Amino acid sequence: MYSHNKGRMQCDRLWKNARLATLTGEGLGIVESGLVAARDGRIVFAGAVADAPTLDAAEAIDCAGRWITPGLVDCHTHIVYGGNRAHEFELRLAGASYEEIARAGGGIVSTMRATRAATEEALVASALPRVDALIGEGVTTMEIKSGYGLDLATELKSLRAARRIGEVRPLSVTTTFLGAHALPPEAIGDKDSYIATVCDEMLPAVAKAGLADAVDAFCEGIAFTPQQVERVFEAAKARGLRVKLHAEQLSNLHGASLAARYGALSADHLEHVDEQGVKALSASGTVAVLLPGAFYFVRETHKPPVELLRQHGVRIALASDSNPGTSPLTSLLLAMNMGATLFRLTVDECLAGVTREAARALGCLDSVGTLEAGKWCDLAIWDIERPAELVYRMGFNPLHARVWRGR
Amino acid sequence: MYSHNKGRMQCDRLWKNARLATLTGEGLGIVESGLVAARDGRIVFAGAVADAPTLDAAEAIDCAGRWITPGLVDCHTHIVYGGNRAHEFELRLAGASYEEIARAGGGIVSTMRATRAATEEALVASALPRVDALIGEGVTTMEIKSGYGLDLATELKSLRAARRIGEVRPLSVTTTFLGAHALPPEAIGDKDSYIATVCDEMLPAVAKAGLADAVDAFCEGIAFTPQQVERVFEAAKARGLRVKLHAEQLSNLHGASLAARYGALSADHLEHVDEQGVKALSASGTVAVLLPGAFYFVRETHKPPVELLRQHGVRIALASDSNPGTSPLTSLLLAMNMGATLFRLTVDECLAGVTREAARALGCLDSVGTLEAGKWCDLAIWDIERPAELVYRMGFNPLHARVWRGR
Repeated sequence: MYSHNKGRMQCDRLWKNARLATLTGEGLGIVESGLVAARDGRIVFAGAVADAPTLDAAEAIDCAGRWITPGLVDCHTHIVYGGNRAHEFELRLAGASYEEIARAGGGIVSTMRATRAATEEALVASALPRVDALIGEGVTTMEIKSGYGLDLATELKSLRAARRIGEVRPLSVTTTFLGAHALPPEAIGDKDSYIATVCDEMLPAVAKAGLADAVDAFCEGIAFTPQQVERVFEAAKARGLRVKLHAEQLSNLHGASLAARYGALSADHLEHVDEQGVKALSASGTVAVLLPGAFYFVRETHKPPVELLRQHGVRIALASDSNPGTSPLTSLLLAMNMGATLFRLTVDECLAGVTREAARALGCLDSVGTLEAGKWCDLAIWDIERPAELVYRMGFNPLHARVWRGR
Repeated sequence: MYSHNKGRMQCDRLWKNARLATLTGEGLGIVESGLVAARDGRIVFAGAVADAPTLDAAEAIDCAGRWITPGLVDCHTHIVYGGNRAHEFELRLAGASYEEIARAGGGIVSTMRATRAATEEALVASALPRVDALIGEGVTTMEIKSGYGLDLATELKSLRAARRIGEVRPLSVTTTFLGAHALPPEAIGDKDSYIATVCDEMLPAVAKAGLADAVDAFCEGIAFTPQQVERVFEAAKARGLRVKLHAEQLSNLHGASLAARYGALSADHLEHVDEQGVKALSASGTVAVLLPGAFYFVRETHKPPVELLRQHGVRIALASDSNPGTSPLTSLLLAMNMGATLFRLTVDECLAGVTREAARALGCLDSVGTLEAGKWCDLAIWDIERPAELVYRMGFNPLHARVWRGR
């Protein structure tokens, strides 16, 4: 918990009579009798009433004992895309596997076609209801990846749409260039040549336009090899962009170790990571982003090695992976329930996973993810009696109010 | 689809320019260019524009191509209770099984204490946010069971609270007396004696007060034997009340056959039912109510034999099983997704399962569950392009509007 020299302090707005889960330190940072004060959109005090300075607030809001957590952070989404894949879902019910659908030219490629065909405005318009569902649960920061364009124009269009979402909604959006998501059909099987285009044309153009905060790739048999990913990471490094990786979702190609070697912000999925990979993530401080919605939806049975991650002190985040093919999920509350139910994460791990650790995974823990003076005043205020309720319930949203940058 | 002699017809309200899933017949009953007309709260026409009479409507609502389904029916809930079990959820994350928690005096008994301690008003107030979550997804009919009182006063109080919910919300509530849910601690292990109280005191008083539309029991090693259930069913029969049964959730005690023998409306859970039980359900026309939320939440691995149910023509419904211990679920949309993802039900089966078949399971298919003239005009109007989207998405609510009895 942030501690402050007592004294007199001006603030714009004060949330009082609240219970806090500040998420500072290692656990939930529970404060039974707490308050949060904001000025110019930033927290100036968050902590126990007993430790608070005298606050002169222009506005004071009585939280009536409700809980305040940091605004939620969804650190892995593909929420900007054209069309949807409800029909493919029907096919999967008829028995087709994720890999079979991908190999049959369905999967990502069908979304690619719809995304290419859509205007930037249409991409924004179709994403907003999904974004609003997450906002309605207290999400204040969201990562959005490209990766359904697979050509320069559409990747740029998708990233512009992502940035636009952050302009039309009270939401901090961070963008990720994921050109190396899948092979477009026009590459007719030549992955090396497509990766060259990603590295030599797409990534430089994206970087020059300032449209990406990070670079991601999909390291998998049905996507790209570690060697191809390495080329993408080298190109990102040359442009000063941080990297992250879809690693070990369906098999173990040692993507986690590769990501760690490049100081990746996060390695995501990780169902099949081994101890060597876990050790590498630990050494590099790379966050393990678990995506139980995709695990559930594609009916994976091989769980990520949560106990190994704990033993080696790897930080664990949880995200929606919101995407049309493998995780049409627009709820971090449900992602928490799935993290607990399917992966046996504890309540504390789930809550940290959608706040502090998710912010760490985006490289923005200095500005969001916990309730601490100096950070943006992004709050979720909940009608609950204990934090565990946020994880325990399914299909119930107890959000009372949401605050983004002090409002 | 209901077909009508063309002519001229007066109605109060008309929903036009809609696509319909009428759920009449065996499938979804799709009508691409349809309308629904209501008078005095009941449907007077639902079907294709081409088949419609000339309608003189006091009010016409343009649905702009949206889909209309019957209002959803949640045919198995325990949504009235005191407290919650978020803390027990934390325990389960630490490794305790459902049965271990029940044997340790946790589980149902902890909710019993909180329910006994609550006033009727408090039970209504605590249930309403959960009920509202379901209403917000288009639910227009809901079954509510007692069974957390386990003494006469609290069972009556719970059923009165359930009826009250139907008075304070635009919702049809059907109530079920579930005195034989668990053994209360004051019975100190004497199940036969408690069952005698259920049959000789509780059930007659509930029936006399007109508080129950049906009678349910929990047939399981941790609950009651088939012989004890039979006594409850005999007592129900003597009062002219239909029965239903929690059967074969954790083991096979041949509860399905027992339920069938008494012409039960439904047999619910059924993870462990065998072919003999399935045949019995088929012969008696008893609906199989599958509860994937509980299956998911308690991490069952033994799935209900969906293929056997299909082969023998047993009707399949899906419900939330909304309850604090094993299914804190307040979403039929999510129940559908789980039915598809976990049990491999088809899209058509899922949608029928929360409309037509759920109404059948409640014995009210004559008045709700499909879009047909003569039934209550209970509608759910959806912002979707195809019905599969209702099953495919997770944590997203595309409900545009909800109509209960024509309004």
